[in-house]
Amino acid sequence: MISYFEYKELSRRQIDELIIRNADTDQKIRSQVESIVETVKKTGDQALIDYAEQFDGIELSELAYRQGEIDAAAMRVDRNHARSLEIASNNIYTFHKTQLKRERRTQTTTGVTCWRENRPIERVGLYIPGGSAVLPSTFLMLGIPARIAGSKKIVVCTPPQKDGRLNPYIAYCAKLLKIDTIYKAGGAQAIAAMAFGTESIPKVDKIFGPGNQYVTQAKSLVQTISNTAIDMPAGPSEVVVIGDRSSNPVFVAADLLAQAEHGPDSQSILLTSDKQLAKQVQEELKTQLEDLPRKEIAAKALANSYIINFEKEEELMDFCNEYAPEHLILSVDNPESLGSQIMNAGSVFYGHLTPESAGDYASGTNHTLPTSAYAKAYSGVSVDSFVKKITFQQINEEGILNLGPVVETLAEIEGLAAHKNAISVRLRQIKNSEDSQYV
Amino acid sequence: MISYFEYKELSRRQIDELIIRNADTDQKIRSQVESIVETVKKTGDQALIDYAEQFDGIELSELAYRQGEIDAAAMRVDRNHARSLEIASNNIYTFHKTQLKRERRTQTTTGVTCWRENRPIERVGLYIPGGSAVLPSTFLMLGIPARIAGSKKIVVCTPPQKDGRLNPYIAYCAKLLKIDTIYKAGGAQAIAAMAFGTESIPKVDKIFGPGNQYVTQAKSLVQTISNTAIDMPAGPSEVVVIGDRSSNPVFVAADLLAQAEHGPDSQSILLTSDKQLAKQVQEELKTQLEDLPRKEIAAKALANSYIINFEKEEELMDFCNEYAPEHLILSVDNPESLGSQIMNAGSVFYGHLTPESAGDYASGTNHTLPTSAYAKAYSGVSVDSFVKKITFQQINEEGILNLGPVVETLAEIEGLAAHKNAISVRLRQIKNSEDSQYV
Repeated sequence: MISYFEYKELSRRQIDELIIRNADTDQKIRSQVESIVETVKKTGDQALIDYAEQFDGIELSELAYRQGEIDAAAMRVDRNHARSLEIASNNIYTFHKTQLKRERRTQTTTGVTCWRENRPIERVGLYIPGGSAVLPSTFLMLGIPARIAGSKKIVVCTPPQKDGRLNPYIAYCAKLLKIDTIYKAGGAQAIAAMAFGTESIPKVDKIFGPGNQYVTQAKSLVQTISNTAIDMPAGPSEVVVIGDRSSNPVFVAADLLAQAEHGPDSQSILLTSDKQLAKQVQEELKTQLEDLPRKEIAAKALANSYIINFEKEEELMDFCNEYAPEHLILSVDNPESLGSQIMNAGSVFYGHLTPESAGDYASGTNHTLPTSAYAKAYSGVSVDSFVKKITFQQINEEGILNLGPVVETLAEIEGLAAHKNAISVRLRQIKNSEDSQYV
Repeated sequence: MISYFEYKELSRRQIDELIIRNADTDQKIRSQVESIVETVKKTGDQALIDYAEQFDGIELSELAYRQGEIDAAAMRVDRNHARSLEIASNNIYTFHKTQLKRERRTQTTTGVTCWRENRPIERVGLYIPGGSAVLPSTFLMLGIPARIAGSKKIVVCTPPQKDGRLNPYIAYCAKLLKIDTIYKAGGAQAIAAMAFGTESIPKVDKIFGPGNQYVTQAKSLVQTISNTAIDMPAGPSEVVVIGDRSSNPVFVAADLLAQAEHGPDSQSILLTSDKQLAKQVQEELKTQLEDLPRKEIAAKALANSYIINFEKEEELMDFCNEYAPEHLILSVDNPESLGSQIMNAGSVFYGHLTPESAGDYASGTNHTLPTSAYAKAYSGVSVDSFVKKITFQQINEEGILNLGPVVETLAEIEGLAAHKNAISVRLRQIKNSEDSQYV
């Protein structure tokens, strides 16, 4: 069951150990991934067909589901399920749409104008896991910002299912996203296919999506050995709930368990300023756990989780910021005062009625978020992840007369005479020109 | 000298070969970097002192320049140089300041509010190269957005100079940036120190800055083996100039040479729709090259460069977008019409009077930009590079009643009962509550 600690009794070393998530990679997985990636790079489609047989136990005659199959599979979704996917999709669209903004031009010196323009990443690859659970929500979370950004080519890979049929919810999401092809490839081999391209699967510029250790390792590898970018590094999912006397232990326990059911390596943490809450939550966890279909998984995750009781809010927030949680639920009456102290987190849930599962599916925020303390340096996926911001500058005659001598001086400092000359030839021409109004 | 091609005579294979920049890593460099990084991780300061002796030929008694030394070195900068650094700094500040914006809150469903807030990356590391040239401009380009973002800890590393003294321009920039410590560490060992921390040098969350192959390799390595982010992968610098009948061959040649003097592996490319321009530029290159102090470097880079003449603008722009240049100069009368066709580039220079060297130093845009076609997926450094955008959501009673059933349905689809339960416990409480206005 979940561990309990009093913060004041912890040594610095113990605190460090609680904060660190083991990111050591299994060397065996690593070398297996290297071999898979190399094989896909060399033999393309054939490698994907071989791996599908080896890992997924399915003989593929086709590497893609096409429009007809997608349409047919989507028909199998009932009305209520379809409506829920549509509402989630609309909310995700509404929030993500606000993220793309035109920026104004700035005159930094008279005659010198600078600005940024957004351009979509042209070819993006979305990886939709399909091992222990098929995740249509992930398809929406990646596909919607890609569509808003305007990416021209959206390549989707998902592991082939044993029965050979396309999951109907994935198909329905494809319809919502106007995506007409889904490739049957999973694991490291799917990542390699999108990074290098095969006869069937186009090479992309950036790969998005969560996955198991093989997928994670493959993303990290192709980022180094190909010119393919990735959304972010990934580790097991995690939640921190911050509670106090105002918290509802039933809600808190339910939130911790929602995280715990993801996988045995998930982590659910409660940081509280109220001992009583800690006790009540521990009781509630036992009760609620019994009713869960995935209770074995959740129990393993809880064994890897903890509650800490703090006497000082400052220490609680310092711990939380050092932990840098993927999900942070502020299960308190006044979340705002804690909110302003958050430095590192993926996504934050304010108040008693905002569970993480709302954000996982349908509030509108993205659920592809930095884990393993990567929230210290990374943001979750957003429309920004699918665009480049290109800088532009335009200098007119007055501008080059104003700025030119400064650039000449700085180029001199750095000993770059040709840099200086690119200014000098222009200044000389203006000064020799009879129709300049400035000289 | 520079090569010349007619686009219509090129095969697809030749085009691919012209576009690709060799990104193969020297295996010897790779294994040397791995050993350096491992040693710094294990022995910290002592490793830095040993490498300074081995690589920089200097015996260090101190690993940092402190306030007093920085003040003293900055005093050696003359008034004109100081003023140029200040103007550049002001322009960079003015443009970058516009990049940090508060975002509005969005109600995605009645009672469900989502928004993003910026938080600085708390500890950032800036690498300022100091090998063949000391680059104070890079210090400004990295330090100013870090300051605007609000990063608390800015760690700066630059290779120790043979004479043991701090470069006065670096010192002057430190004063402008209000940075009171500069660490004497260069190459892969500096990157390792910032990624893992040593007794003297604090560990950071993200490392920025250009460098030679050792630095680049080390950044790529620590990104994989530590939880440290990096700004972007890096390769040799490059420029594409697009020219036509309106272009001034003297300006174009000067711009190509400014790029070429960076290093023998730099690439300077002219894409033109005017044969005559190609010829004139080739002549001009010969003339201007003669006067350059770094003419040997520039000549090597030009041997690695080319001019292509196109008959169709569309083909020219397709080639340019496939190349995805770090710098793109539109040396034409109406840059706007080409500008809207740019899909991939780091920074763009509009018109005859906007040379790249203006952006390298002082127009206000950042000069830390994606090379080697990384502009297909990466943006240059900006204030965005120094912040995380954390998503927030807040749901009230009406919101959870509206959205809850949707989340329950989606959690069911994915077989995640505890996710569903986190909603159900809340709906149940509201429905049992007498004072709810909604039930």
